[in-house]
Amino acid sequence: MATDWEKKAAAARSKLNESIPQDWRRVIPDNHVAAIDHVASCDLLTTREAEIIQMSATALVADLANGRLKSAEVTIAFCKRAALAIQWTNCGHQFFPDEALSQAKQLDEYFEKHGKPIGPLHGLPISLKDQLRIKVRNTIGHETHMGYISWIGRIDEEDSVLTAMLRKAGAVFYVKTSVPQTLMTGETFNHIIGRTVNPRNKAWSCGGSSGGEGAMVSLRGGVIGIGTDIGGSIRIPAAFNFLYGIRPSHGRIPYGKMANSMEGQETVHSVVGPMAHSASDLRLLMTSVLNEQPWLYDSKVIPMPWRVHEEEAIYRKARLGNLSLAFYENDGSVQPHPPVVRAVDMVVSCLEKAGHTVRSWQPYRHDLAVSLVGRVYVSDGHADVSHETGASGEPLIPNVVDLFDPDLSAVNVNELWDLQSQKWKYQMEYLQKWLEFEATHGGELDAIIAPVAATACVRHNQYRYYGYSTAINLLDWTSVVVPVTFADKDVDKAIPDYSPLNDMDGLVHKEYDAEVYHGAPVAIQVLGRRLSEEKTLAIAEEIGRLLDSSLTP
Amino acid sequence: MATDWEKKAAAARSKLNESIPQDWRRVIPDNHVAAIDHVASCDLLTTREAEIIQMSATALVADLANGRLKSAEVTIAFCKRAALAIQWTNCGHQFFPDEALSQAKQLDEYFEKHGKPIGPLHGLPISLKDQLRIKVRNTIGHETHMGYISWIGRIDEEDSVLTAMLRKAGAVFYVKTSVPQTLMTGETFNHIIGRTVNPRNKAWSCGGSSGGEGAMVSLRGGVIGIGTDIGGSIRIPAAFNFLYGIRPSHGRIPYGKMANSMEGQETVHSVVGPMAHSASDLRLLMTSVLNEQPWLYDSKVIPMPWRVHEEEAIYRKARLGNLSLAFYENDGSVQPHPPVVRAVDMVVSCLEKAGHTVRSWQPYRHDLAVSLVGRVYVSDGHADVSHETGASGEPLIPNVVDLFDPDLSAVNVNELWDLQSQKWKYQMEYLQKWLEFEATHGGELDAIIAPVAATACVRHNQYRYYGYSTAINLLDWTSVVVPVTFADKDVDKAIPDYSPLNDMDGLVHKEYDAEVYHGAPVAIQVLGRRLSEEKTLAIAEEIGRLLDSSLTP
Repeated sequence: MATDWEKKAAAARSKLNESIPQDWRRVIPDNHVAAIDHVASCDLLTTREAEIIQMSATALVADLANGRLKSAEVTIAFCKRAALAIQWTNCGHQFFPDEALSQAKQLDEYFEKHGKPIGPLHGLPISLKDQLRIKVRNTIGHETHMGYISWIGRIDEEDSVLTAMLRKAGAVFYVKTSVPQTLMTGETFNHIIGRTVNPRNKAWSCGGSSGGEGAMVSLRGGVIGIGTDIGGSIRIPAAFNFLYGIRPSHGRIPYGKMANSMEGQETVHSVVGPMAHSASDLRLLMTSVLNEQPWLYDSKVIPMPWRVHEEEAIYRKARLGNLSLAFYENDGSVQPHPPVVRAVDMVVSCLEKAGHTVRSWQPYRHDLAVSLVGRVYVSDGHADVSHETGASGEPLIPNVVDLFDPDLSAVNVNELWDLQSQKWKYQMEYLQKWLEFEATHGGELDAIIAPVAATACVRHNQYRYYGYSTAINLLDWTSVVVPVTFADKDVDKAIPDYSPLNDMDGLVHKEYDAEVYHGAPVAIQVLGRRLSEEKTLAIAEEIGRLLDSSLTP
Repeated sequence: MATDWEKKAAAARSKLNESIPQDWRRVIPDNHVAAIDHVASCDLLTTREAEIIQMSATALVADLANGRLKSAEVTIAFCKRAALAIQWTNCGHQFFPDEALSQAKQLDEYFEKHGKPIGPLHGLPISLKDQLRIKVRNTIGHETHMGYISWIGRIDEEDSVLTAMLRKAGAVFYVKTSVPQTLMTGETFNHIIGRTVNPRNKAWSCGGSSGGEGAMVSLRGGVIGIGTDIGGSIRIPAAFNFLYGIRPSHGRIPYGKMANSMEGQETVHSVVGPMAHSASDLRLLMTSVLNEQPWLYDSKVIPMPWRVHEEEAIYRKARLGNLSLAFYENDGSVQPHPPVVRAVDMVVSCLEKAGHTVRSWQPYRHDLAVSLVGRVYVSDGHADVSHETGASGEPLIPNVVDLFDPDLSAVNVNELWDLQSQKWKYQMEYLQKWLEFEATHGGELDAIIAPVAATACVRHNQYRYYGYSTAINLLDWTSVVVPVTFADKDVDKAIPDYSPLNDMDGLVHKEYDAEVYHGAPVAIQVLGRRLSEEKTLAIAEEIGRLLDSSLTP
């Protein structure tokens, strides 16, 4: 007999299934491995639609702004592809193509009437993680259940600030993508829709918590997806899906009126940012949002327009082969899998070949950072998580069970303040290390290259070590993920007779299998100090350019 | 018999007394009222020194940079005057003129050798609240006891980030000024040095918690003083001492490595900023600190240089009589004393006379803001305060007793998160009010004029209502205090048959006495949204200019 919560979950699943128009439904063969190999041959998109979804967001908005493309056709193209992505990878929570089309038509009418776009994202479909609220014109909004059964039926009564900014910029909304229960894991599984899988191999995770976005954008069911990141939740799915992603520093992009777990937790802020196929599409999103002056609406946003001069300074250095970078392959706690180490090395060689300077970086007490941030995540002794799951009686998902300590107590206010003091002290010490590096080597250090995760993808329920991403959350640095390559069983051999540094290192090491992970995407992150989005993104773009040109003979 | 803590306090007092050179000591007559009427006739400063201390900081650094003045003579002038200020108003915690002179001489040597100043504050003495740490070259630093007996003997082992920035900019340190026990009160009294009094009337408070700075700068024992503000602690003493003061938004000026009470409390951040005799001297300090790129050292500082274009936009509007402002006289909870209402009206008339638009502002739920921020201040159930006072056995001072509820519990982490959620929601609602005002009246609203406190000065132990300042701390808005006028018993008559809105209003109302407060300084605050320091300071400057010119026939 199905329990109450199972019935509620089943009803929500049915609602999602029904939201996919009949003639967009396909039978997904059980025996497939990689959705990405099949989705194009599903005979749903027209040739023109198939071309549209392959375009960059930057190219799309250009053609939408000059009238060569209509929003309606772009929207239908992405809706169709999103419908396939949802069916193949289970990456959707809410899907509303009719409404999207009606919004698109209104934008087309606007263009017709005024002869100009309504904003920099005019007519562009944007895919949203199921934390962003969408009020629908003249009616109530969509549901935001965020993977909690007890939240099913919670209707969006207003736009999140970011939704409103994107709307003003001309974006079209058509889908809310999947997240894991609690949002606090690096994979994407919840008891409402089940598991979201990696489009390149259904045995691999799509990453998390913005895993739905990772799968959706990877399959080009979306051209830009909006994710959030409190411990790697933009970066891990970007890396696992061969995408670019930016974790802006807190205060750059508005989080106001979004749903969240542990709402009000401000010790380590969750941040929101885009995932896309290129650095320039990330920039399009960032500049379009900042163009709407989000600081006038969300008190946590810093009144800081996009600083073009910061980018230009990097472009100049890039042209001259004058970038000064650092890198690390190992954070001192967990040795990354061979493909990850190779990706870092590839980036370093590419940069050096172009004349840039890349020196070794000594990670500064990342174990302390990881331990502090870990304590912050559970500083309420799991009270929030227990409350939200307990309300429906649903069990914890395996990833959360891994992180859950039933004996853990909440910290008290003074202990929380002590954690916050330690955080600040650590952040300042790390800034000091940056300055010392500059003093030692003479001249500015532009960014640091590092792994995003210890693994290139991961099999389900095997994501263990969050330290490569979470240390950066504690620092609140800007991080941009750059996709680099794919694991190769012939090159990325396991290290023989590896002696683990600690239990976690052993656990992570054991998971590596060159055969199993063959073909898994591998990325690096480019790290800049706090609020260095322009500079760090420009460096990521240069790295991407160098990697691309290294592939063309 | 003196208790242990009394003995420790007495020893610290003796140390302070001894730090004043013999021939700088004066006998202070018991029967004086206003230090400000006597201090100039103490026969200590030479005529030239007396002229120096009357100069603005902006004029001083100009003459120090062109060699017309030497840092040594400027430093001696301010040290002498500071010695008098300490003796007359009890505004010092640590005084170290010898060291200051040696620092000044080094700067003079630098100037001699290089023919140019070391930085924008070259040779300028800056007075520091006793939260800033000072490492002394080649030796250990000064003491930071912050008014807690249990902290006596705590030696500064490093510079606070701000101290280091000021040092690099060329500032000379010579004094640490007094604060109240806990820092959490609007007056300045502690069990180590006793009470700091108002230079204009020793029966009035100098304000708090940066009360030592208020008295020191008011008496020109300093030209720029550094204060901090978590609930009005820069603004109240600025107002009570006829000074300008800026409460920057959090993240603009570095607080790193400063001492504080309730360290690690981040729900409502304490901020640091200057107090001075003019808006332009505040600007000098702000620009000099930002010039040193404090964000490279303190992770909480936003990488945002001084935005000259924001000031210039205001200067243009000011010239054209095009400023658009709003004002309120009453926050809906406590009616300010008559001189305060008159000060707001004076500012409004001045602005209107110059052609600017000033409309009435409806304070939005300030009672909620005051209640939220109040709960944050005591969210640990007084644990920190009880610990620091309990360590020595010293009793709580009367102002703290007023705020102390022995039955109050600490909030738990989830309750703190809830407070933080409420704070954010309120901040966003208030931003919405700002936008609605602009929509209603068409065009940008530049700033809001408001009282700083309900009273013009206050008699000792009578500071009760913090709401005029604390609501702004919850919003984290930029606030600049502009001194306006002085209470006048012939004009500022008590309201007859006043019916209090509530108990607090009754308490505050009862304290007003036109005779008692005759001559008390009155100020207003200019409020700008978060991180609007350039704009808000420029508006404050314009208001000051208009007030000045309204006094000259």
